[in-house]
Amino acid sequence: MFEVEVKYRVTDHTNIRDKLRELNAKFLEHTEETDVYFNSPVRDFAKTDEALRVRVYGDGTVVVTYKGPRIGNVGKTREEINVATNDLDNTLEILKRLGFREVARIVKRRDIYNYENFTVYLDTVEGLGNFVEVETMVNDKGLIDKATEEVLRFGDKLGLSRDWIERRTYLELMLEKLGVNKP
Amino acid sequence: MFEVEVKYRVTDHTNIRDKLRELNAKFLEHTEETDVYFNSPVRDFAKTDEALRVRVYGDGTVVVTYKGPRIGNVGKTREEINVATNDLDNTLEILKRLGFREVARIVKRRDIYNYENFTVYLDTVEGLGNFVEVETMVNDKGLIDKATEEVLRFGDKLGLSRDWIERRTYLELMLEKLGVNKP
Repeated sequence: MFEVEVKYRVTDHTNIRDKLRELNAKFLEHTEETDVYFNSPVRDFAKTDEALRVRVYGDGTVVVTYKGPRIGNVGKTREEINVATNDLDNTLEILKRLGFREVARIVKRRDIYNYENFTVYLDTVEGLGNFVEVETMVNDKGLIDKATEEVLRFGDKLGLSRDWIERRTYLELMLEKLGVNKP
Repeated sequence: MFEVEVKYRVTDHTNIRDKLRELNAKFLEHTEETDVYFNSPVRDFAKTDEALRVRVYGDGTVVVTYKGPRIGNVGKTREEINVATNDLDNTLEILKRLGFREVARIVKRRDIYNYENFTVYLDTVEGLGNFVEVETMVNDKGLIDKATEEVLRFGDKLGLSRDWIERRTYLELMLEKLGVNKP
């Protein structure tokens, strides 16, 4: 599965939320997530554009995600591989013992909406501000360009200016803020 | 937690099983486990005496285990850190993407018994034969020597000769059999 996702930086979520209501988009849930990012002892994920993330949800669920390099120009499509684990501390400890080192933690609150094939995330990230992510999923690499165009057109409809597109990840934005150029 | 464990190579399990019945040891369960071992891209686990294992139980449960180097001389005490995951294929795939490579698979059937503080495993390992493992757990490194002596005395009681002690891991035995000296 490939996630086709475009992220926009916004000052606040009010207008987007109004638009989603107008369209009768379905509110799915509010989540609070803490993401712990690791770098590899073998290669620098900032250079290879990969990521290893341990995500903890508000209900305590822990998910480990490997993200491959971004594909395409506008969006931030990547291949993702996920597994849930039953214990946060042991998950972090095993990664540390294997030589991975923690580079940053991202704490975010998100309201998640569904509209047709799209998922819309209204994100507030501690220390970074407000963002909107518009996402859809495709099975095949060949469908990514078409899906990206659909995501962008849906973004237009929500009143999201293409000038607000933020291609950097939250991790990259956080590392820049912290004055670290490379994780 | 530290696992204090002594392993014996046996021709078959009949005598031990009889002894366990005499002692009224409690039969806990029969399990079938497949262990997939990985080596690190950073350091050679055969040299550092560490291990990274993905174990799949007969019921489909998946557990990832990091094992630290063996401590002590007779037994094969190690620190272990475990997490269960919800998906075998994705667990193996994430490890591969992170640069770990599979070195061997060990398939074993075990009957597990409990007697006082001891757990006894009657193991049949595909390609390697029959073994008995006697195990107890301690909270503190300072208790390992005492616990090892207790395990050995309980082994005597079961009729397990100290000459049959096998300090090598199943992984090491399998790699020797395969003609690989270092995983």
